[in-house]
Amino acid sequence: MAKSATNNARVLQGIGDDCAVLRPLGGQDLLVTTDFSLEGIHFRREWHPAESVGHRCLARGLSDIAAMGGEPAAVFLSLALPRDLPQRWVQGFLRGLIALAEKHGATLSGGDTAESPGGVLADIVVVGSVPKGKAVLRSGARPGDGIFVSGSLGGSAAAIVQLQKTPRLQKAPQKKIKPRDYLRHFFPEPRVGLGRILREKGLATAMIDTSDGLSTDLAHICEESCVGAVVQAELIPRAVVGEPAREVDLEVALHGGEDYELLFTAPEGKRVPARIGEVAITQIGAIARGRNIFLSERGVRRELVARGWQHFGLARS
Amino acid sequence: MAKSATNNARVLQGIGDDCAVLRPLGGQDLLVTTDFSLEGIHFRREWHPAESVGHRCLARGLSDIAAMGGEPAAVFLSLALPRDLPQRWVQGFLRGLIALAEKHGATLSGGDTAESPGGVLADIVVVGSVPKGKAVLRSGARPGDGIFVSGSLGGSAAAIVQLQKTPRLQKAPQKKIKPRDYLRHFFPEPRVGLGRILREKGLATAMIDTSDGLSTDLAHICEESCVGAVVQAELIPRAVVGEPAREVDLEVALHGGEDYELLFTAPEGKRVPARIGEVAITQIGAIARGRNIFLSERGVRRELVARGWQHFGLARS
Repeated sequence: MAKSATNNARVLQGIGDDCAVLRPLGGQDLLVTTDFSLEGIHFRREWHPAESVGHRCLARGLSDIAAMGGEPAAVFLSLALPRDLPQRWVQGFLRGLIALAEKHGATLSGGDTAESPGGVLADIVVVGSVPKGKAVLRSGARPGDGIFVSGSLGGSAAAIVQLQKTPRLQKAPQKKIKPRDYLRHFFPEPRVGLGRILREKGLATAMIDTSDGLSTDLAHICEESCVGAVVQAELIPRAVVGEPAREVDLEVALHGGEDYELLFTAPEGKRVPARIGEVAITQIGAIARGRNIFLSERGVRRELVARGWQHFGLARS
Repeated sequence: MAKSATNNARVLQGIGDDCAVLRPLGGQDLLVTTDFSLEGIHFRREWHPAESVGHRCLARGLSDIAAMGGEPAAVFLSLALPRDLPQRWVQGFLRGLIALAEKHGATLSGGDTAESPGGVLADIVVVGSVPKGKAVLRSGARPGDGIFVSGSLGGSAAAIVQLQKTPRLQKAPQKKIKPRDYLRHFFPEPRVGLGRILREKGLATAMIDTSDGLSTDLAHICEESCVGAVVQAELIPRAVVGEPAREVDLEVALHGGEDYELLFTAPEGKRVPARIGEVAITQIGAIARGRNIFLSERGVRRELVARGWQHFGLARS
């Protein structure tokens, strides 16, 4: 389901001229998203293998395209590297990035390179498309709509919690946790196919990807839609990660970012499948009138405060 | 002439959703360019006023659009800022950037913000358009074509030469040179209107902007077009800058980057005006068979080696 079937924009001229030249299909609106991945802020070289950094860098952009119900077409990478960075690291980074791009039918079409004043600095741009007027915005949620989330939550932040338990100076702490036990952190799969299906079937009235965490991303939907929400704590699908595998804490599922799942609302009464393709879909609550967002836990309601996701800030706070 | 007359792509959804949504006009190819502006590499806060940094950041991208004969539509800014950066600096930066965007009819439509691990880090994306199949590439130069350049060369690098004469530790060295005496460095005007006219009139067979300097950018055209060139040293329009004003040295005009002039080739025998709008156009040589690039000075030919532009590297080398 991951691979985009259509060729929604031809790349006429890629790397090697002043600009890339794309020819979009007729009848399409264009989607553009841009995301920084900065060493020390979004990743650490001692924590994240080069392939993971490249993969995550692009996953951020693809996930934004997914959240509009769109399909990616072209990728642009601005990459600044420290002078002493091993070539092997760069090759691994590009391998991770290009493998994910190919999986989604997107072409690396240009970008910029520079010497970095400090650390690896990457900025990814993804250009995609969606049929005219069909982009799923954050602003379409209405009172009574169900709130749904794909996959499970907190799996990415749980890896950060583990990584932060390792003293910074210890060599190669990533060996303490294995990427395969925390795939949603090291190699998150953006939900591009799912986003497209939700858009095609008219199931999503509003949609966002959970890059900042459920509490913050739901607040974004509510703010843009001028509505409130009630979330049932017991319904939240918590990620099962680690070795031995265990379910993440509720707080991690509520506030942990970078899961790159889709959070969307669907009209009241509309049947939403429990599974679309390989991805589980779970209703976790409903949109309400007003502007408050509540969490209901064992019958007790409390305000769900948007914590914001600070990347490495979870265990610090 | 700077302002784009047409509204070539409507921004349906700007800042505030997962992606920006653009609706391009029919019959257009899309242009995308991305450029880093990194503190310590592309600018220094002690040298460049905030407005100048914002202006130059965007000028790099607009100039790439100009070099394709295109028109800018939307601008995206990824901006990472150090925690202790004064708000006043950010306001100045945005003022410089937005003023230039408005002048060229481009809309700031999204981007990303992050905390910087060190220094101000900006990546600019400009999306523009050009009528289908009409983008002016680097690869269209043919033997016999004349080589032309807009404006004058070396004015930007001359500022760097002056700035580097000031010891690094001296406070506020930018007071040593006034931005108004080196406008091409501090506030370069990208040649968007000129690029469009050259494309409309079919005057340019190949085109590039002089971001890396004449010697390097001409080498790019020759490489992509599989041709050689002969440049007449006496014909090169050298910038007149400083206080008192003086003409820059030939070496600075040959190798200094970031002038953001247009370097283009025109078919042999085609009349190219000496001035288009307010911008002087000068023939400096001709495209030749083979793959060598020569500089002819007082009748003596020597190879013109592409030096590459290293931003602050000119006076270091």
